[in-house]
Amino acid sequence: MKVLWNDQIVDREAVKIDIEDRGYQYGDGIYEVIRIYNGRCFMLGEHMTRLESSAQKIKLTLPYTIPQLTENLKLLVKTEGITEGEIYLQITRGIASHRNHEFPSAGAVKGVVTANVIPFERPLEMQHAGLSATVLPDERWLHCDIKSLSLLGNLLALDQAIEAGFDDALLQRDGCFTEASASNLWFVIDGIVYTHPDGRLVLPGITKMKVLQLCQQLEIPYREEPVPVEALNNAQECFLTNSVWEIVPIVKVDGKSVGNGTLGSITKRLQAAYIAATKSMCES
Amino acid sequence: MKVLWNDQIVDREAVKIDIEDRGYQYGDGIYEVIRIYNGRCFMLGEHMTRLESSAQKIKLTLPYTIPQLTENLKLLVKTEGITEGEIYLQITRGIASHRNHEFPSAGAVKGVVTANVIPFERPLEMQHAGLSATVLPDERWLHCDIKSLSLLGNLLALDQAIEAGFDDALLQRDGCFTEASASNLWFVIDGIVYTHPDGRLVLPGITKMKVLQLCQQLEIPYREEPVPVEALNNAQECFLTNSVWEIVPIVKVDGKSVGNGTLGSITKRLQAAYIAATKSMCES
Repeated sequence: MKVLWNDQIVDREAVKIDIEDRGYQYGDGIYEVIRIYNGRCFMLGEHMTRLESSAQKIKLTLPYTIPQLTENLKLLVKTEGITEGEIYLQITRGIASHRNHEFPSAGAVKGVVTANVIPFERPLEMQHAGLSATVLPDERWLHCDIKSLSLLGNLLALDQAIEAGFDDALLQRDGCFTEASASNLWFVIDGIVYTHPDGRLVLPGITKMKVLQLCQQLEIPYREEPVPVEALNNAQECFLTNSVWEIVPIVKVDGKSVGNGTLGSITKRLQAAYIAATKSMCES
Repeated sequence: MKVLWNDQIVDREAVKIDIEDRGYQYGDGIYEVIRIYNGRCFMLGEHMTRLESSAQKIKLTLPYTIPQLTENLKLLVKTEGITEGEIYLQITRGIASHRNHEFPSAGAVKGVVTANVIPFERPLEMQHAGLSATVLPDERWLHCDIKSLSLLGNLLALDQAIEAGFDDALLQRDGCFTEASASNLWFVIDGIVYTHPDGRLVLPGITKMKVLQLCQQLEIPYREEPVPVEALNNAQECFLTNSVWEIVPIVKVDGKSVGNGTLGSITKRLQAAYIAATKSMCES
């Protein structure tokens, strides 16, 4: 298996991460996950724009230009010969000895890039059958717009949901839903699609961006507004979106069916449109 | 330089961290920083108890017993011949491929231990002159009792303070002070010492524990209560505590002197008692 290490494609085993890499000691870094369809990276430009934005928010100087990173990711996909899959890319602030909470001055460190690519097929069964979820308090930090490596809050929420017998957590803060444990969260209430607006409480999802475009195209009314927890009772549909799983219905929350407890009609239309978009945008 | 890598003392350069170490991809791990005085580890037992507690809170199975870890840390200090210094120890959940937010089942991964030790002398000048600070909102997660590697929230608070020309940040949540960016926070108001009670908003500091004991011994009245931000105006003294710096006064907040803007008498008494404790507890 080959991976990207800084600006080189190397054997996975050749990569040596330093113990004083700030990614390792502080979760001080950022990442992106990008889907590959038909051997092409889906919405790669948008992912790279968000990567730049995350970098800026934590003052991480990208060690390579976006065109260089883009080129190397494409080369990695080609080298591994993956047609349906996903790229995981992360960039840490770099190696700084000795350990010091203060950000090293720009130029004193160089960011460390690692990326790998693995095969992944569209999870059609999950997209059809849906997932169960439980409502949990959102106990993460107030910079959820940054796609950072400091992810333990997300992991703990997911674990708490799984331990209680659910597939995922629907997080709520101050009485309104924010996200699932690692996905944007959506509701359909009286024919209108709702999702939390961008800001510091949610990740500006690339899939979210695409789904909002699809709502426009399909003339499905939508609002970027926080949804109060009690509105769940009036929701006909609920779904989550992320780059890897695309659009997945939440059919049951805390043991109670959402709508009729199966894939809803608007979710289904959006799924079909999304799949069509991946096809048309990743034609060879 | 020798470091501890799992259960071996090896050359620093020999350590190879895997790209799929969950510490690197998720900040999924815990740590401790322990001071060495006179070649001995100060309050090592208390640090190891907190490490166990952090591990338990994130369901991380320690890869070695506490006696084994303790033994190896002592061996590292001896090998490096450090008499005044600090140990940095971290343990991640381990290496799990492929990347998956879900905690791997216990037994499926083995935690990765790394530790190093560096010389460090008591920062007497800082302890005397004190630091400046600014009040910032506490935007970290709601599991601040876990000494985890997902530290970007702490780093961002410190950076924001430094950028604004201050040495550190005094964090406030819902109108009350919680901590400094990486230290417990204390106030002296009308002769009474205040610090935030343990719980999910602050780290249960080992130095905090010792300072509370010293208050008792010195018959200085103290209360573990949240201090409202506006009470800062009535504070005669303010200080922070952490294992590395011990007790350091905050003499100015947002440009305004705390008390008379110099090391206060209660802070000074606690500093002297703390130093005496390190001496008596680390006698050879």
